[in-house]
Amino acid sequence: MKLARFRAAGRARYGRVEGDLLREVRGSPFRGDLRETGKTYRLSDVVLLPVTVPRQLVGGVGINYYDHAAQGDEMAGKRLSAMGVQPFFTSNVSLTGSGSPIVITREAREVHYEGELVVVIGRKARHVSKEQALDYVLGYTCGNDVSEKGSWERDFSLWRAKGLPTWSPVGPWIVTDIAPGNLDITVRVNGQVHHTFNTRNMVHDVPTIVSFLSQYTTLYPGDLIFTGTSGTTRAMKPEDVAEVEISGIGTLRNPVVAERG
Amino acid sequence: MKLARFRAAGRARYGRVEGDLLREVRGSPFRGDLRETGKTYRLSDVVLLPVTVPRQLVGGVGINYYDHAAQGDEMAGKRLSAMGVQPFFTSNVSLTGSGSPIVITREAREVHYEGELVVVIGRKARHVSKEQALDYVLGYTCGNDVSEKGSWERDFSLWRAKGLPTWSPVGPWIVTDIAPGNLDITVRVNGQVHHTFNTRNMVHDVPTIVSFLSQYTTLYPGDLIFTGTSGTTRAMKPEDVAEVEISGIGTLRNPVVAERG
Repeated sequence: MKLARFRAAGRARYGRVEGDLLREVRGSPFRGDLRETGKTYRLSDVVLLPVTVPRQLVGGVGINYYDHAAQGDEMAGKRLSAMGVQPFFTSNVSLTGSGSPIVITREAREVHYEGELVVVIGRKARHVSKEQALDYVLGYTCGNDVSEKGSWERDFSLWRAKGLPTWSPVGPWIVTDIAPGNLDITVRVNGQVHHTFNTRNMVHDVPTIVSFLSQYTTLYPGDLIFTGTSGTTRAMKPEDVAEVEISGIGTLRNPVVAERG
Repeated sequence: MKLARFRAAGRARYGRVEGDLLREVRGSPFRGDLRETGKTYRLSDVVLLPVTVPRQLVGGVGINYYDHAAQGDEMAGKRLSAMGVQPFFTSNVSLTGSGSPIVITREAREVHYEGELVVVIGRKARHVSKEQALDYVLGYTCGNDVSEKGSWERDFSLWRAKGLPTWSPVGPWIVTDIAPGNLDITVRVNGQVHHTFNTRNMVHDVPTIVSFLSQYTTLYPGDLIFTGTSGTTRAMKPEDVAEVEISGIGTLRNPVVAERG
């Protein structure tokens, strides 16, 4: 099932995606009691929202593809790629939906795209094994873990590099019936392919990440986990359009704008 | 005004604290339309909750008292105390109220208390000056920024060191009519004073922190900002009781327990 969260007539709703149509549903995707209301919307008429309202947002897993290690290790000043699963939390205010702008703040210098597979947690998870981990996942979506590169020298945490408002676009929707281990991810800027990679090349796969996190923290229904990017990322500038497409999911598309004022 | 958030009869409520009584209020502390319902509760009969449900939680400001610099700089491997305001975001699932347990997870090694003044944002803040900053603050409460010290060597981010469930106790309530610049903070374990310090010795004061954050991110009503600890902290163990008392506010008190199983 493709499940979109969208705003129509001033309210957030969920809908099942069918071609260009959204079939509105009531109930909770996490309780499994979704039922169609009979109302339909055209995808082109609605505003897509972040796919959930998470309690927590795992902003990424530091260096989860070896071909991103050179860039990532250099910025972190540590060999992250050799340090086990390296998740980090960012602020929930960074979420935005497909179609909404990524706003480059006045103070930001070099702001990169990072195309990633995003895991949507479906059930409360604590101390779950790798073997059980996927039972706690509702589905997957595309994410762009927008990252400011200049601030690494100035800060000890990622607070100013990641997680600023609009810097975590997720969408366009959740796909519930795919496996995460062999998905093609394509990153485009202004229609030009910048990078393609496959999730089978993750250093730590999705079951490992979910199980690892659950040994320390509690994961809740709706929590989102960005799983890391691949390759060497490049800067975006105002008026660019950034796209992250994942096979079997769809395309997350966000225009880039400069903060006003 | 002293404003507590508490659970009674299965629901979260706000109440004005008057001695041992809570006078229940309706409305929003952020809209300024609070009115008493006439209902009262004894403080001893209710469960105190985290003072707000924030959109984002600034888990702390790295090294905001010079006498904590030796310990903090060593762990971070950087001279944080010379790097300007160093905030970091942690996960909202770490919040808990006064009286509730701090749960030491199975995998944690050395878990320290960190007594801190916590700022409660009252109005949406973006690009505010130091001079305006306090107009955006609703009030203050006590916080214990519980921190696992062993994980700094293993991780590049603070995700496993801070922000795990129950590791951000805040309370007992918000005090709205005090100034933040000259408050005594006392940290006790099992009734014994471990450290006392005063907020006038902050490296970056509250107006500076709020203004700085607002240049990069948007602060929302209810957002919480931990402002850093002082001195050399020590480990807590199961069956300890940790207290953070701030003059003019009150005492945040949390028993420490080991995770079961």
